[in-house]
Amino acid sequence: MIARNSTVTQANAKVDITATNVEAYVQRLGRDAKKSARVMASASTLHKNRALEITAERLEQRRGYLAKENARDLESGRRKGLADSLLDRLELTNARIDAMVEGLLQVASLPDPIGEIADMKYRPSGIQVGRMRVPLGVVGIIYESRPNVTSDAAGLCIKSGNAAILRGGSEAICSNLAIADCIKQGLDASGLPDSSVQVVNIPDRAVVGRLLASPEYVDVIIPRGGKGLIERITRDSVIPVIKHLDGICHVYIDEHADIEKAIAIACNAKMQRLGVCNTMETLLVAASIARKILPRLCELFVKGGVELRGCDATRAMCAGVAAAIEDDWSTEYLAAVLSIRIVEGLDDAIDHIDKYGSHHTDAIVTEHMHTAQRFLREVDSSSVIVNASTRFADGFEYGLGAEIGISTDKLHARGPVGLEGLTTQKFIVIGDGHIKT
Amino acid sequence: MIARNSTVTQANAKVDITATNVEAYVQRLGRDAKKSARVMASASTLHKNRALEITAERLEQRRGYLAKENARDLESGRRKGLADSLLDRLELTNARIDAMVEGLLQVASLPDPIGEIADMKYRPSGIQVGRMRVPLGVVGIIYESRPNVTSDAAGLCIKSGNAAILRGGSEAICSNLAIADCIKQGLDASGLPDSSVQVVNIPDRAVVGRLLASPEYVDVIIPRGGKGLIERITRDSVIPVIKHLDGICHVYIDEHADIEKAIAIACNAKMQRLGVCNTMETLLVAASIARKILPRLCELFVKGGVELRGCDATRAMCAGVAAAIEDDWSTEYLAAVLSIRIVEGLDDAIDHIDKYGSHHTDAIVTEHMHTAQRFLREVDSSSVIVNASTRFADGFEYGLGAEIGISTDKLHARGPVGLEGLTTQKFIVIGDGHIKT
Repeated sequence: MIARNSTVTQANAKVDITATNVEAYVQRLGRDAKKSARVMASASTLHKNRALEITAERLEQRRGYLAKENARDLESGRRKGLADSLLDRLELTNARIDAMVEGLLQVASLPDPIGEIADMKYRPSGIQVGRMRVPLGVVGIIYESRPNVTSDAAGLCIKSGNAAILRGGSEAICSNLAIADCIKQGLDASGLPDSSVQVVNIPDRAVVGRLLASPEYVDVIIPRGGKGLIERITRDSVIPVIKHLDGICHVYIDEHADIEKAIAIACNAKMQRLGVCNTMETLLVAASIARKILPRLCELFVKGGVELRGCDATRAMCAGVAAAIEDDWSTEYLAAVLSIRIVEGLDDAIDHIDKYGSHHTDAIVTEHMHTAQRFLREVDSSSVIVNASTRFADGFEYGLGAEIGISTDKLHARGPVGLEGLTTQKFIVIGDGHIKT
Repeated sequence: MIARNSTVTQANAKVDITATNVEAYVQRLGRDAKKSARVMASASTLHKNRALEITAERLEQRRGYLAKENARDLESGRRKGLADSLLDRLELTNARIDAMVEGLLQVASLPDPIGEIADMKYRPSGIQVGRMRVPLGVVGIIYESRPNVTSDAAGLCIKSGNAAILRGGSEAICSNLAIADCIKQGLDASGLPDSSVQVVNIPDRAVVGRLLASPEYVDVIIPRGGKGLIERITRDSVIPVIKHLDGICHVYIDEHADIEKAIAIACNAKMQRLGVCNTMETLLVAASIARKILPRLCELFVKGGVELRGCDATRAMCAGVAAAIEDDWSTEYLAAVLSIRIVEGLDDAIDHIDKYGSHHTDAIVTEHMHTAQRFLREVDSSSVIVNASTRFADGFEYGLGAEIGISTDKLHARGPVGLEGLTTQKFIVIGDGHIKT
């Protein structure tokens, strides 16, 4: 970790960083990261796992220290008048420390993706060609107020053999540095370079700008947070960004749907948890089945406290549905609001999803094989689901073990991003004196 | 194809395109591409292959037409005083038409990557999760004077279910449009939308600028050409770019190298073909073996007309070697020039490659197992080779069937980019009424 003795590590300290300082700071950060990335790339599975386990142990043992540093962030947040929801996210409860510890141990237990060789084949020329999985190099993660991201992201980066530069929200800086100190102990004790995980310890925003303009030091940027943050970073970065923008998820109830499955899935997709990205925002129902299912569903939604906004046909069929306006179809409510549209059938549903969706997660409920097959192939989203709730779209449910985010990009990583998303493959060739003729 | 009746399709016509026209033109291009991308994504393998085969047939049958249009480009190129090397690249010889035809038929014979489902597994929740390979969507390819790229790129995009927007050099516009007309006939005759391959037919550079700023229409940009073009596009594009910059390739002759293999590989890597990206630019030799091998090698290089620039130790050992300056180590000569350095051993060699290389292709010659293993793992290049020539680093030799370029990027596609590099994977989930608890 860099400049740990600097006074600016204290969130409430007077900060006086000049542009020259920022430049020198980011260069040192970048050079140290690059250097440790080379060591991490060939670190053994045993050493990487040990670093994770010791970090977990330290977090466990140093709960008092974490709580104290967290209290400083909370205190200064309250003084600054942060919203309650923000203070809530900032808090390191005992349960959240437990989750960090478990997360690290779980990542330690996952197979090491690095060095894995795939598709090794002899070619007619006599050479053998295959692919080896390797780390991306230096991963820059820019996030907001949740301090647990420091531990989760560091764990995934260490296991995947990358160096990490972590830049959390300035309101969480004491908590983040306390967690970083535990990570440093884990790295030290396992013989790995402690600059392979560096937490930015000056709150100056210019650091982020400079990082995003440093492809010589950083190989990929992963922003985690609200849409504003992600859009800003994507716009400013000259480095590839793995990002997650909107989650405007649809459930389409097809004319061949099983009514009971459809009701269970639609209710679960909306009401099992509000405010997360894989929650349904728009329900599409085939006209031919709407009368049998929509009135019952609307009643359940209203009973569950969900505000409904529908097309004219929906409103004619169900009570308590407000008129949806055009903007509703392209809004991620992240709240107890649902838009409903009656469509003609599969093609109409796919057209709607294509026009208004965000290519995140979309589901169909149908018992008809060919309809399911067409939906799977033709809907262009990172997760396409048949007869199950959109809420399953996450790395744990998919068996990736842990996720650093869900990507709505098409290139490189699409959908939940786990360890594999932090790696890439290079070609390896083995010959025995082979030359090209 | 858009605006085929426009007078600007003639390279020598007076061009009068206003900014408004460019805007409208690119929007129409983009909208048509997006629309056909959806059709192409679910097009059957049979239809896609048929389009390739009929295009090949048309190119074959319409050689006279192609030659006539190509002659117009050559004529206007000569009038403009284009260099001979450029005119040579521009020329559509019979052999080059043969190669386009064979290329299309070869791509038709490759397995269709689209719709392929991998890793389908049951999860403890009861859902099945896997990944389906899907097209990227709309691929924008920006290239220079070789008209055969029009056919090669179109073939790969059609087979991989993408829509393509092709923007070739203005000096090749008549040839490119003639080839595009054959592609259009292939698409028409096989029932695929002809706007799935569109060749930009106005030479205004503003079209490129507008395309690079249109993420709503274009999913990925692939530039093909000189370093200047690629750097310009990478800088200006807000769309992800799959690119190939330098090819500063190394061969490291280790102390455990077999002398005869080392000599054969080093000569082949430099002299089998000059001016291509996988040719060796720097030779590294372990100090302990240098005396046994370098004098012989230098003689062969000099005999082969290769200009040598070496470190002091090399010059003390071999005649006819000029002094290398610092810049030599990071120069892609693309010519009969080679830099030579004597290094201490493996670590020194890897340090040199890391500092000066371009992460393209690097090879080691060694009989020592652990040294080879370390080189394979620790050298961070898109192709890492043991005991074979760097010249093997291409899509045909690797069995990818055809390549649209070699990527020196780390994300998404690394190394030779074939059909698979034009695709991505989405998650698919199948349940039977499963909800999240």
